[in-house]
Amino acid sequence: MSQEILVAAEQAVKAYGWAARDSSGILSPFHFIRRTTGSNDISMKILYCGICHSDLHLAKDEMGLTIYPIVPGHEIVGEVTKVGSNVTRFQVGDIAGVGCMVASCRSCDNCIQDLENYCPKIVWTYNKHHEDGSRTFGGYSDKLVVDQHFAVRIPDNLSLQGTAPMLCAGITVYSPMRYFGLMEAGKHLGVVGLGGLGHMAVKFAKAVGAKVTVISSSPNKKKEAMEQLGVDEFLISHDQEQLQAAMGTMDGIIDTVSAPHPLLSLTEMLKTNGKLILVGAPVQPPELPVFPLMLGRKLIAGSAIGGMKETQEMIDFAAKHNITADVEVIPMDYVNTALERVAKADIKYRFVIDVANTLNSPY
Amino acid sequence: MSQEILVAAEQAVKAYGWAARDSSGILSPFHFIRRTTGSNDISMKILYCGICHSDLHLAKDEMGLTIYPIVPGHEIVGEVTKVGSNVTRFQVGDIAGVGCMVASCRSCDNCIQDLENYCPKIVWTYNKHHEDGSRTFGGYSDKLVVDQHFAVRIPDNLSLQGTAPMLCAGITVYSPMRYFGLMEAGKHLGVVGLGGLGHMAVKFAKAVGAKVTVISSSPNKKKEAMEQLGVDEFLISHDQEQLQAAMGTMDGIIDTVSAPHPLLSLTEMLKTNGKLILVGAPVQPPELPVFPLMLGRKLIAGSAIGGMKETQEMIDFAAKHNITADVEVIPMDYVNTALERVAKADIKYRFVIDVANTLNSPY
Repeated sequence: MSQEILVAAEQAVKAYGWAARDSSGILSPFHFIRRTTGSNDISMKILYCGICHSDLHLAKDEMGLTIYPIVPGHEIVGEVTKVGSNVTRFQVGDIAGVGCMVASCRSCDNCIQDLENYCPKIVWTYNKHHEDGSRTFGGYSDKLVVDQHFAVRIPDNLSLQGTAPMLCAGITVYSPMRYFGLMEAGKHLGVVGLGGLGHMAVKFAKAVGAKVTVISSSPNKKKEAMEQLGVDEFLISHDQEQLQAAMGTMDGIIDTVSAPHPLLSLTEMLKTNGKLILVGAPVQPPELPVFPLMLGRKLIAGSAIGGMKETQEMIDFAAKHNITADVEVIPMDYVNTALERVAKADIKYRFVIDVANTLNSPY
Repeated sequence: MSQEILVAAEQAVKAYGWAARDSSGILSPFHFIRRTTGSNDISMKILYCGICHSDLHLAKDEMGLTIYPIVPGHEIVGEVTKVGSNVTRFQVGDIAGVGCMVASCRSCDNCIQDLENYCPKIVWTYNKHHEDGSRTFGGYSDKLVVDQHFAVRIPDNLSLQGTAPMLCAGITVYSPMRYFGLMEAGKHLGVVGLGGLGHMAVKFAKAVGAKVTVISSSPNKKKEAMEQLGVDEFLISHDQEQLQAAMGTMDGIIDTVSAPHPLLSLTEMLKTNGKLILVGAPVQPPELPVFPLMLGRKLIAGSAIGGMKETQEMIDFAAKHNITADVEVIPMDYVNTALERVAKADIKYRFVIDVANTLNSPY
């Protein structure tokens, strides 16, 4: 072993979490190593971590991309326990949030434009490798070490449980709603799917005074959507009459559903210049309805999370409007049951693991 | 017959052109009636009419939409011979242009925003009915009567032969290039297909100082494209090495090809925030490559011609930059051969019928 590696090994920090070992996707306790706090890093004691649908996909290796063992979790809120010598944005005791990425090249066109989320060298928060070859492990664990650039400040007034899911589900809808001009008073926004992402889209849109129509395959979600979330209209996606009546009425639609579904009726619901934004990735490419696009200069776009600057902006917007995700807080050892329920969409609207109080670390 | 219809019939104007009678699509001489010049109308002696690929589709009823007999032609330039009492924009002797539409509701949201091209009650220049039930007949004919709102003024310096195709092919690419911000100095534009539409896109983009890459299945078009049109790069669409080298380099792509072709490599050629604009309508919907869109906030849009205000703007832009279409001028009785050559894409880049000198009217 070289001197350098010996020193790095001695300095490494013992960490503890829950990992999946194979495509059963079942998680169990797992010991691993995190790096020591570098000069640009903060170390965090993880308090809460949301459960994203992609945690399930990756734990079960449904996309053929998984490197086992895998510690999922990219909706992380924690308390800063240590800061590196160059760290200016955080102090010990601050609350920080970390989302889907923990590094990028910082020098490409995307990074320079605060779009680290589209950097070709992006390092995801888990199931990837750092530049030095070490593995990344996610937030279903006791601690995290991360470059301060990839952490956001969490204002005091936000509930930490409800804030965790915003680091992925929130920014995933906030970013395209902003970029495509759909988060504006007077605009009529359609939201396809009322899960973790969809209910965040509703909250952001309602906060700015937009009209919101949810398009869902679940009639049983209607009452709560209208009474609790303030949704203006609720369309059942298999009710042709309702869809017909909505034709040409929407400025934009955020489609959060990754299960296969046709896009034709959605494009028909758009006004001229309307925008259909896909943030749920289907396994099979759907058909592109070209004619409806042409006959109204409409567009279909994709979007993936958001850059760090915009993620901070989203959190600050949420703090200003007192927005957080609606969550069901669970103990760490409920995670396998929770993932089963995620697969069945049996959750309103996001699970959040109470890591600090329920992950019994041996260290 | 009511008095009103009798008067209308007496006042109607005899017209003469070439029409297809059945799905053979073969055109032959045809007598018909146009309305008299109403108070908002101009009457035109047709000088030139371009041949658009859609003339062929409709003459042969390839979309199941044709009403026979059909007189095609929606790229019309003519001399004003009469003006109605309310006409302010034209005088007798002026040169006017008429494109794909001759009426719209003038009161819907689209019309109010100068987007008559997206009005649900749009009346196409041929193969449609006017509000009064009478048929519309296109520009393969001796004369036209049209509301002044749906005619544009043609500046003196433009060649009339080369101007005719701009009324459809030109505005079809100009409108989305403007709307989607692709017609700007320093931008890198891809143009798929180098036909009537594609070569206009090249000319507009080069006029503003954009970099233009043509993506074509025809290597034999390369030399002329680069030497005559000033194209910067010419990619062969089945050359994987060339496509690979172009990945992530373009701000936008105008896709003018309606024949089936995959969109995946095109989306991959776009930079982050890149825009793929479809202006050729495929018969079968292509697959939508969602992942490449998501991993760069890219979009795919459709667009169809442009509004009247923008069509005038396009013509004025063309006059300022001395841009017209490259055309092969033909006599009327060559039209059937020309349509056969259109089907084989054997034309650089547009046929234009010399109507005034070669349509031998019996009147």
